[in-house]
Amino acid sequence: MTRVHIVGAGLIGASLGIGLTAEGWDVTIDDLDPETARLARALGAGSELGQEQPDVIIVAAPPSAAPEVVARALTTWPDAVVTDVASVKSSIAKAAHETGQGHRYVGSHPMAGREISGSLAAQGDLFKARPWVICRNGATDDAVARVQAIAQALQADVVFMEAVAHDAAVARVSHAPQVAASAVAAALGTLHPDDIALAGQGLRDVTRIAASQPGMWADIARLNRHNIVATLDHIIGDLEDVREADDIGEAVTDLIERGRLEVARIPGKHGGAPRDWAGVTVIVPDKPGHLVRLLQDAAAVDVNVEDIGIEHSPRQSVGLTTLYVLPGSAQRLVDALESNNWEVVRS
Amino acid sequence: MTRVHIVGAGLIGASLGIGLTAEGWDVTIDDLDPETARLARALGAGSELGQEQPDVIIVAAPPSAAPEVVARALTTWPDAVVTDVASVKSSIAKAAHETGQGHRYVGSHPMAGREISGSLAAQGDLFKARPWVICRNGATDDAVARVQAIAQALQADVVFMEAVAHDAAVARVSHAPQVAASAVAAALGTLHPDDIALAGQGLRDVTRIAASQPGMWADIARLNRHNIVATLDHIIGDLEDVREADDIGEAVTDLIERGRLEVARIPGKHGGAPRDWAGVTVIVPDKPGHLVRLLQDAAAVDVNVEDIGIEHSPRQSVGLTTLYVLPGSAQRLVDALESNNWEVVRS
Repeated sequence: MTRVHIVGAGLIGASLGIGLTAEGWDVTIDDLDPETARLARALGAGSELGQEQPDVIIVAAPPSAAPEVVARALTTWPDAVVTDVASVKSSIAKAAHETGQGHRYVGSHPMAGREISGSLAAQGDLFKARPWVICRNGATDDAVARVQAIAQALQADVVFMEAVAHDAAVARVSHAPQVAASAVAAALGTLHPDDIALAGQGLRDVTRIAASQPGMWADIARLNRHNIVATLDHIIGDLEDVREADDIGEAVTDLIERGRLEVARIPGKHGGAPRDWAGVTVIVPDKPGHLVRLLQDAAAVDVNVEDIGIEHSPRQSVGLTTLYVLPGSAQRLVDALESNNWEVVRS
Repeated sequence: MTRVHIVGAGLIGASLGIGLTAEGWDVTIDDLDPETARLARALGAGSELGQEQPDVIIVAAPPSAAPEVVARALTTWPDAVVTDVASVKSSIAKAAHETGQGHRYVGSHPMAGREISGSLAAQGDLFKARPWVICRNGATDDAVARVQAIAQALQADVVFMEAVAHDAAVARVSHAPQVAASAVAAALGTLHPDDIALAGQGLRDVTRIAASQPGMWADIARLNRHNIVATLDHIIGDLEDVREADDIGEAVTDLIERGRLEVARIPGKHGGAPRDWAGVTVIVPDKPGHLVRLLQDAAAVDVNVEDIGIEHSPRQSVGLTTLYVLPGSAQRLVDALESNNWEVVRS
């Protein structure tokens, strides 16, 4: 039986404890704040550490503290495998290797729980079906296997990646997009409320993540500064090319074309590009039950709805609902919906 | 009976013709390309212009041609009201006023039909429940009333705004966000396909519009260059502040906080902020019918689902579905779903 000790009893730490305990693992949990630790234990996230030596330490401290806490854990428990859960990995790997015990350190990045915080929000299934990146960084096979077993016990989707590649990738796919979305939102500051009413689904999509709490972004930005700055350089360069172009029309077209190539590479369902789906848009009254009927009519002809977009009209009691389906199913869906008297908008 | 003549038989022009004809209006339609005009007429978008003088001319030409075509229409039909449908309004108003006949010109911007083009895709209900901006710019009350009647006949959602304010607003809420989303997407170009796999819903949201066809963006960018550049200046300035900050953590936190204030002002349903909804996330098997059952269980306790977010796991056959509901309904929904054995993820 692997004994797991969790250092840090916030949302992620407590959720790990609850999940592993539920799977029958032997879990202990602690926190710098004794009250937080007590609360997590009361929630079933594990017991108090006793005399027995843990086999695996999971450091679930804030990112800024993680390098030091990981290094300390490697020293405190000289036989244990140590992992952590921070969303930036290189600086922690560096701190681990500086202890001379890097072969016992495995980086983890469970990509879960964005809009939640605190142990009261913890839940054992937080990691289920979510990516969990494992960065080996020169750890032993046994160390990697022990951390992988934890991710698998929580039904996470394990992805192997080196720390340097991980940090460069999350800057491009997460950190810089967050900063850019916030900058697009901040630029709305000059507008009168009546004028913002022209906003459509496009702006709502672009700025959705700009509504997030700053939370750990300060820590993340500091730890991944190099990669974030490199990505911002790229984005700023493209925006400046548009701003300064002799022909802004040509510059915008060029940028849109380049962006389209990259968007097509973003994986959607099961690794396929989401853009491969066909959208079938229907005008629906904005009342309970209509969406159910719509989906029932889709299911009746055996069409699986891959995604749904709902656009409410600001002043009217109807909305536009788009069902995204495999292209081969689109015509069947349109026929079925029209024969059930839905107003289909072909797009 | 108002006689409407439409100049330009692409998606918007033909859709206007089909919609107004269906409402019993007397519509004629033409296009520079005789074949396009014939096709639109065959689709029911109107008849050929004869000897009778039209009362209202709708210029549905590409944005770059609109100023000239509007000016020519004001001269050709000295008693008619002239409107247009371009998504940039100031330069067209200027061209109209330079003819000395600006009191007969009313700017229109029906905000519909983003991903569609060509008259074959035309449909009369394209404008239903969509915003239709009317820019008066010194037109007579009668001229404004005639254009408003057209928008209302098509069940569009009329918004009055001056051309200058309109162009500044669409640069902030649409044109610059499109450019920024494309720049975020273009910055993914350095990543290996395996690394892009770390992309989550946040990146998919930010870059969704970056998948659009360049279409009329070159025209739009040229006509609204001044406002687009001013917005890009704002965005670039914020990104540079982050890039060059002594403490990038503080700079990112500041930008996120400023962005959050603006996102809260973006109207969602019926003018309310979408962020006021509570999200209830459920783990669902990725098979036809489950979404229907989920929504049925919501409808059974009379909870109206305002929006739906679906996140597929890249490698597993389950997904996370979030139902957005009024905060007062969230607990009722959670209780109902749990009593029906759904795996609810409290977030």
